[in-house]
Amino acid sequence: MRTLVSELSGRVGEQVTLCGWVHRVRDLGKVSFVVLRDRTGTAQLVFDAKPEVTPESVIRVTGEAAANEKAPGGVEVRVRSLEVLSAAAPDLPFPVNQDPGKTSLESILDNRMISLRNPAILSIFRVQSTILKVFAAHLRGEGFSEIKTSKLIGTGTEGGTGLFAVDYFGTKVYLTQSPQLYKQAMVASGLERVFEIGPAYRAEKHDTPRHINEFVSLDVEMAFIESEQELMDLETRILSSIFKAIREENSRDLEAWKASVPDPVLCAKIPRVSHDEAKEIVSKETGKKVYEITPEGERALCEWAAKEAGIEAVFVYAYPRKSRPFYTHPAENNRTRAFDLLFRGLEVTSGGMRINRYEELVENAKAFGLDPSGLSDYLSIFRYGCPPHGGFAIGLERLTQKVMGLASVKEATLFPRDRKRTRP
Amino acid sequence: MRTLVSELSGRVGEQVTLCGWVHRVRDLGKVSFVVLRDRTGTAQLVFDAKPEVTPESVIRVTGEAAANEKAPGGVEVRVRSLEVLSAAAPDLPFPVNQDPGKTSLESILDNRMISLRNPAILSIFRVQSTILKVFAAHLRGEGFSEIKTSKLIGTGTEGGTGLFAVDYFGTKVYLTQSPQLYKQAMVASGLERVFEIGPAYRAEKHDTPRHINEFVSLDVEMAFIESEQELMDLETRILSSIFKAIREENSRDLEAWKASVPDPVLCAKIPRVSHDEAKEIVSKETGKKVYEITPEGERALCEWAAKEAGIEAVFVYAYPRKSRPFYTHPAENNRTRAFDLLFRGLEVTSGGMRINRYEELVENAKAFGLDPSGLSDYLSIFRYGCPPHGGFAIGLERLTQKVMGLASVKEATLFPRDRKRTRP
Repeated sequence: MRTLVSELSGRVGEQVTLCGWVHRVRDLGKVSFVVLRDRTGTAQLVFDAKPEVTPESVIRVTGEAAANEKAPGGVEVRVRSLEVLSAAAPDLPFPVNQDPGKTSLESILDNRMISLRNPAILSIFRVQSTILKVFAAHLRGEGFSEIKTSKLIGTGTEGGTGLFAVDYFGTKVYLTQSPQLYKQAMVASGLERVFEIGPAYRAEKHDTPRHINEFVSLDVEMAFIESEQELMDLETRILSSIFKAIREENSRDLEAWKASVPDPVLCAKIPRVSHDEAKEIVSKETGKKVYEITPEGERALCEWAAKEAGIEAVFVYAYPRKSRPFYTHPAENNRTRAFDLLFRGLEVTSGGMRINRYEELVENAKAFGLDPSGLSDYLSIFRYGCPPHGGFAIGLERLTQKVMGLASVKEATLFPRDRKRTRP
Repeated sequence: MRTLVSELSGRVGEQVTLCGWVHRVRDLGKVSFVVLRDRTGTAQLVFDAKPEVTPESVIRVTGEAAANEKAPGGVEVRVRSLEVLSAAAPDLPFPVNQDPGKTSLESILDNRMISLRNPAILSIFRVQSTILKVFAAHLRGEGFSEIKTSKLIGTGTEGGTGLFAVDYFGTKVYLTQSPQLYKQAMVASGLERVFEIGPAYRAEKHDTPRHINEFVSLDVEMAFIESEQELMDLETRILSSIFKAIREENSRDLEAWKASVPDPVLCAKIPRVSHDEAKEIVSKETGKKVYEITPEGERALCEWAAKEAGIEAVFVYAYPRKSRPFYTHPAENNRTRAFDLLFRGLEVTSGGMRINRYEELVENAKAFGLDPSGLSDYLSIFRYGCPPHGGFAIGLERLTQKVMGLASVKEATLFPRDRKRTRP
């Protein structure tokens, strides 16, 4: 029976079998230490003679678990027998057991298959796994159903720009930019409250620390609401659940990056400001005239929120109409009922109320230069009765990035795709 | 405050507000009945005069909840005020309030945006939502982490056939057929136990009730196991959890299709037969000489299992080497350590132990006609220490189909993609 590293402290004095990777080898002549790594942590192994193992080899050892104050965790294993399950070649292309801060992002991503073994790097994705869990669990608790919709679409929903084309048996289809139209269909289907976790694509040539061309979209849509404020309320509850769970389940992962998660209680205090108010705040904070909210402005807003509310997050609502897709519910003065959530200087959510009246939607599509005849499937949702509704989408990788305090969203993506990167 | 239909029985004698869709209108002259549908069920509304509403219009009504033995659920609402939130056009393209068994699959899928409102059709996807929930929850309970990997790959992993090509900024990439290589990388990363829920693609020209070109793959991979029997054990536990939850949470959805879910306790009794034994069983059951296991043979095997073990499911292991991908762990006599699960006559799972030794994998790739230099990222997983491991993938739509007893997998897919269908 295998013992996990996390179980070792309860097994002092007993014979145990550990399995894992050789994290580090230290030969002191009379005695050798090997640090073994498994999915629960690392443990010190003691050998009388230097074992024939290379770093990253996978081994199985049997020996006695013994108390030793100097060993990490207070327990070490005095090895009686060693079996090499898979020997690693000695030319390791990436330093698994060192601080990843010393290596370039380029090197981390080029050697992704190996760099993911670095415990600090891997910790990012343990946190991401928690986010995925809590996002779904929270919404199910509020009566939401999970849906899985097609990622191949016949036409672009927001015009044809920014789409990747797929050769589909000789015809052209596109990778979806968002499950927007499908989640609206599922609200109108009678499920009323739906969420989807799936990939989305943007064929944009950005090359910045905030852009990737394939991302995981955490999508929410709900019916019978009257205002976008209810959507911000819902997102606040979701974030609070996520932050609470990360604090409870990922403390070791946070430590690896000296990251701190906002106090879940403070989520309810995230300021909500209109787009016009936001521009004023940015202007006041930066001392510059502000025409639109740039990345610099997003950072200034979050710093302002930290001072105001103790949390580096802010909801910005009432976006101008021209900056939002055609299905966005308009508001007075060429504004919309759309909002963004900025968190630690970055937009992590877009959402809002949608138009649910057929005639209004047709008119707005035309005003945006779209041909309603190309939208007939989508428009049929509204032609046959659709409740008032709205929703939002959280970018999984951006949220992970900002929770962990990473410089680039690519660090928070297992196998990122950017303009130049299509491997591994 | 809105009252849901499911809460109505506790509100008799009170004034309530209901929101939902007009499911049916029945005018008896002196009095009119409207059946209102919300996400929790249907309720009878009583009007003194015929209301001006078309089927599928979305309405909000206020009135008194009154006991009435003849009303479904024993309660009806005597309406005082009606508000039409969204009027439906009268030319409804699909009968929402009738038995979908009377309409063709073609019509159901052509009018998907509206046919999903049919309560029986929608019930399929409530069950699917439960499957998604329990698959993830069960695995998390056994220490698995959830991963999200890229669906865009530089090269085909099992040769170049059956892949959809994507135009990626002028270069060609492909839609993934399976997250196989990435989940193996994540096992070797140190997570040891991972699962992924995501789309997968097969550019195959099949046009059968069991094939779709885009499906959701429920993927599992785990390290430090010694045999494929442990994988079948794990799948048995997952299925048992799923069946138990569907019985508890989806009884109304099962009723809509007169579907029955296997007794969760019987999952542990699913027979496990070798591929050779399976052929013998098919031969005995069908009275025909059997060279390979065809769809007819799969049905015969499941009928045999129903007689033997009381559950229409069977694990078939020790598949011939030539029928499995190059990464499959070989066994004696040109067999492999791979298995399938057949359920109610259909393959719903493929899995097995994988090769974890570098040299053996390189050799096997060559034997399968693959060029190892094109697999260098993948091979690096094994070059630098990879534990013994294996895994499997369950087809979400196939499992849903068979649980609900549907004729075609397309019925269990929200927006199916087949050779001719790329909309809605």
